[in-house]
Amino acid sequence: MRFCNQCGHLVEQLIPAGDDRMRYVCTQCHTIHYQNPRMIVGCLPVSGDRVLLCRRAISPRHGFWTLPAGFLENGETTQQGAERETWEEAHAKVANSTLYRVFDLPHIDQIYMFYRADLVGESYGPGTESLEVELFREEDIPWQELAFPVVFEALREFFDDRRSGNYPVRASGLPDNWNNWLRPAEQALTDAD
Amino acid sequence: MRFCNQCGHLVEQLIPAGDDRMRYVCTQCHTIHYQNPRMIVGCLPVSGDRVLLCRRAISPRHGFWTLPAGFLENGETTQQGAERETWEEAHAKVANSTLYRVFDLPHIDQIYMFYRADLVGESYGPGTESLEVELFREEDIPWQELAFPVVFEALREFFDDRRSGNYPVRASGLPDNWNNWLRPAEQALTDAD
Repeated sequence: MRFCNQCGHLVEQLIPAGDDRMRYVCTQCHTIHYQNPRMIVGCLPVSGDRVLLCRRAISPRHGFWTLPAGFLENGETTQQGAERETWEEAHAKVANSTLYRVFDLPHIDQIYMFYRADLVGESYGPGTESLEVELFREEDIPWQELAFPVVFEALREFFDDRRSGNYPVRASGLPDNWNNWLRPAEQALTDAD
Repeated sequence: MRFCNQCGHLVEQLIPAGDDRMRYVCTQCHTIHYQNPRMIVGCLPVSGDRVLLCRRAISPRHGFWTLPAGFLENGETTQQGAERETWEEAHAKVANSTLYRVFDLPHIDQIYMFYRADLVGESYGPGTESLEVELFREEDIPWQELAFPVVFEALREFFDDRRSGNYPVRASGLPDNWNNWLRPAEQALTDAD
């Protein structure tokens, strides 16, 4: 950020009175421009023993598999955003969406929220941001070709939970050792995320 | 928003190619300025059968009681943000924080996340944004003097859950009828929120 979006004058970085961290502040109108984390919302669409994944047609991680997810928009709920992204990326409708996983990614100023949901029917297909969309059983998940660590972790937890039939809502960062599980893809994932 | 924060030229509102909603776009450098919901994180600090509330020293809702909460900052996890706000507003330390309640407030582009937590010791007091800080039993909660509907609802649910000993994580908007419960304070709450 170099300019004030209110008056167009230069901004500077300083700690405002009563605050304790650096902010962009306009040199002319003194507006403080706070910067806050962004939320990414998505679904884990389930059909029987299978989960719906999308192969990305966009960067980062073009060609890798992901859960349908994207930035939460103003004016929508997290559930609405998760279902909208599922429609846009996988042309899939879901029902019974329930909050399942919150991931904190403070190193990139993002919070992920995944809803677990039932795929409605067997109708799905690639939206403009996907190359293909497919249902996968646990043993068929392309674990080495997943786009992001949060997708790997959410899927791993889901199939574990499925064995117990108990799906607790979890909120945390990635496990400290997540990159040990992904040795071949480690560098690519680190680069992208 | 009137000016591009990258180059200082005027922005205009238009639907970018491949998008489906209006965005602010720079007329000169064509940067798209996305606007996304902000997250507010806080704690519901518990000590035995009592909950810690802060009386607000700032607007909106100056003088009304609230749970310690504030905007999530870049570079922190939601739990860290919730605990930081609890320290800043109530000078209280908590332990065993666990995600308890997510509120969608799409009409004001906010997502709230409350962590349920154990108050450590009996040490607390007003930070600069609080007039006073106090522990309340359920029967002593100032229900008609709560600052925001999300605080009312989180406290109501918490004391209900406490009777069953089961604290499910909930994610939703406010109940459709929330303002029926708050007749005397309804207008003030609507104005503020």
